[in-house]
Amino acid sequence: MTESGDRLRADETRARLLDAAVLAFAERGFHGATTRDITSIAGLSAAAIYVHHRSKEELLYQISRTGHLDTLHCVQTAIASSDNPTEQLIALVRDFVIHHARAHTVARVINYELAALSPEHQREIKDLRHTIDAEVRTLIEHGVAQGCFDNPNPQMAAVAVLSLGIDIARWYRDDGAWQPEDLGDHYVDLALRIVGARR
Amino acid sequence: MTESGDRLRADETRARLLDAAVLAFAERGFHGATTRDITSIAGLSAAAIYVHHRSKEELLYQISRTGHLDTLHCVQTAIASSDNPTEQLIALVRDFVIHHARAHTVARVINYELAALSPEHQREIKDLRHTIDAEVRTLIEHGVAQGCFDNPNPQMAAVAVLSLGIDIARWYRDDGAWQPEDLGDHYVDLALRIVGARR
Repeated sequence: MTESGDRLRADETRARLLDAAVLAFAERGFHGATTRDITSIAGLSAAAIYVHHRSKEELLYQISRTGHLDTLHCVQTAIASSDNPTEQLIALVRDFVIHHARAHTVARVINYELAALSPEHQREIKDLRHTIDAEVRTLIEHGVAQGCFDNPNPQMAAVAVLSLGIDIARWYRDDGAWQPEDLGDHYVDLALRIVGARR
Repeated sequence: MTESGDRLRADETRARLLDAAVLAFAERGFHGATTRDITSIAGLSAAAIYVHHRSKEELLYQISRTGHLDTLHCVQTAIASSDNPTEQLIALVRDFVIHHARAHTVARVINYELAALSPEHQREIKDLRHTIDAEVRTLIEHGVAQGCFDNPNPQMAAVAVLSLGIDIARWYRDDGAWQPEDLGDHYVDLALRIVGARR
């Protein structure tokens, strides 16, 4: 085994543990899931977790950090895709909604288990969330300033648009009536209504 | 101690255990909270729980059943308060939102721990949820039929209105910027936009 082969295998194991932790946390909650639940889902020995991750909280932090960075990237890419606030909002809501429907298990964990993070990790994740909120609020404020949107309370509109997307993670089922893309279209319409987009 | 005094005291203990279970489930999740966590919050001996409730799941079921019946009652009362769909929706959203902000801890438990209920209890609670959903969908359908609302998809509008209210339980903080009543007013405006109410 070469050194780079060892590294590759360690990376794979680390990723397997993260995937297993998402399932275990979603199923039993952070406090209800034991490290043994996680290694058992990953098909590894109980000790494997501490070879690759410092603690159960560290796993939650990695899942949460990656998830929030993905969401921030998706929001910023949508905003960069156009100069027109209506087009920006359409792209943003469609991507945000499709992501929360497809990745509903991860989304549940990172939105419902914030309180289980260490204070330091909580601060870091809350900063990321504030950045995401601010991007959406600024977009809506720009739309209002340019006369594309009509809403006296851009802050509340931003809360509502994000809240609708996040709550999809609670109720979405893979075998339900709606595909992620259909939901994306419907929620674009809802978001345009909320901001009062001129059509 | 008279017999009715005994009964009163037993009722009080049962209620104290339910309140303690709400706190323990909200803090550590259903699977993470032990029966000892619950009796300790209630200030009772570890054995007290089985004198008054059959199991931890039975506590969750009682909390969930009461919470859903309260919500159904609040929805039906709002609808009965007027013949006009716009007035009905205003009353419904205001009450639903204020309730989810004030009772955010209970609302988190009953909305996020459904999967922890026994199959039989899950069926009963899901029936209650379908009844609540159907009340809101029917209200919006009536509003569209009467020309008060303009939305091609009353079912999706009903999902969104309820979803916005439920998600308040995730993010609402007692020491945050908004009082439950302010939030009620803001969300009435959002709901009227979503259904396309003529103003």
